[in-house]
Amino acid sequence: MQKMMAINDIMAMDKQQRVHFINSLGGFKSVALIGTVDATSLENLAIFSSVIHIGANPPLIGLIFRPSPPERNTLSNLLETGFYTINHINEAIYDKAHQTSARYEKEVSEFDVTGLTPTYKDDFIAPFVKESLVQIGMVFREKIDININNTIMVIGEIVQVYFPENCQCKDGFIDLEKANTITCSGLDSYHTTKRLDRLSYAKPDKETTSIISDYFE
Amino acid sequence: MQKMMAINDIMAMDKQQRVHFINSLGGFKSVALIGTVDATSLENLAIFSSVIHIGANPPLIGLIFRPSPPERNTLSNLLETGFYTINHINEAIYDKAHQTSARYEKEVSEFDVTGLTPTYKDDFIAPFVKESLVQIGMVFREKIDININNTIMVIGEIVQVYFPENCQCKDGFIDLEKANTITCSGLDSYHTTKRLDRLSYAKPDKETTSIISDYFE
Repeated sequence: MQKMMAINDIMAMDKQQRVHFINSLGGFKSVALIGTVDATSLENLAIFSSVIHIGANPPLIGLIFRPSPPERNTLSNLLETGFYTINHINEAIYDKAHQTSARYEKEVSEFDVTGLTPTYKDDFIAPFVKESLVQIGMVFREKIDININNTIMVIGEIVQVYFPENCQCKDGFIDLEKANTITCSGLDSYHTTKRLDRLSYAKPDKETTSIISDYFE
Repeated sequence: MQKMMAINDIMAMDKQQRVHFINSLGGFKSVALIGTVDATSLENLAIFSSVIHIGANPPLIGLIFRPSPPERNTLSNLLETGFYTINHINEAIYDKAHQTSARYEKEVSEFDVTGLTPTYKDDFIAPFVKESLVQIGMVFREKIDININNTIMVIGEIVQVYFPENCQCKDGFIDLEKANTITCSGLDSYHTTKRLDRLSYAKPDKETTSIISDYFE
């Protein structure tokens, strides 16, 4: 049976129920760990489920920040230093990744409390997560205030990428499933994926075909 | 073996390879069909992989628009009428959903060419996709120019939601896996999901636990 809820029903929900409901309606989300340091090199690590592709040229990724404590430390750090890392989450670390969403004091490093390992590479000043298989070094580019609900979009440019070599296809695509990257839904649900297909570029009057066969070199 | 690519390597890639590469780095994405009509009731349907949760109170979802034709029709329609629909994509329709990304002329309805069925409900002026199990009616709220690469973020408010009644958990969460919603990566890769777990709200000095057991009513 299909159920219908109108805006009045939604606004009449218990607050926490509405948060779970609305968060799940946006679909499966890109989830990652954001690594930063402040000006005194104090490390911070926080899980975000609002990673969004903004463009490929220049290579840009966006993040949405809410005014809550774990996200506030990440935001002040990346504005202070100009740099941050995006680290994909895999099946081996999703529970530790989730734990970074707890409201730790600023002087506590989420690396320490979760046991995830900070790693520094190629003189990049923000820490990568060693256990992550896809690691991205970002430089801050733009901060956009979303006035309608006091959230903030931060846009950064990709400047360094580390990934398992055998996960890149000949057309440039990174096979995230092969790289063990997971997805999430709602506030707390984590999922692995299973590929249905890759489809050819769609054109009018032409049926799309599977492009899996010419996938890897 | 881990491979490293710096910004110079990325900018030196073939343009299409870079598009595939960068698009996949953002992780698994929320993908949906956006249904609109123009002022003359001409229907449009377009796939978007940039659906993003903005907030629960008020209930807001964002979309990123690129200045390419299929997205341009959707944007002008939703600005013209103020309304649009977000329709989750499932395993039965992902190939048809992908086909909507072809550059059809404005007078062509993507419903007609793909065989997806427009359906109108409860006086909402934009068409829902009948084959979609989770359907959301949206009202336009805000348009934000992202000047760094000439993209646009549109934020809308959820005003009507239709979903399978047996997919809602007692805490409000919609089990998207049970609703057959899929995810995508890169430009053209579609994936079903398999739940690892739902984890309890994270607190300092407390281990998170699975909350699957008290999942459904």
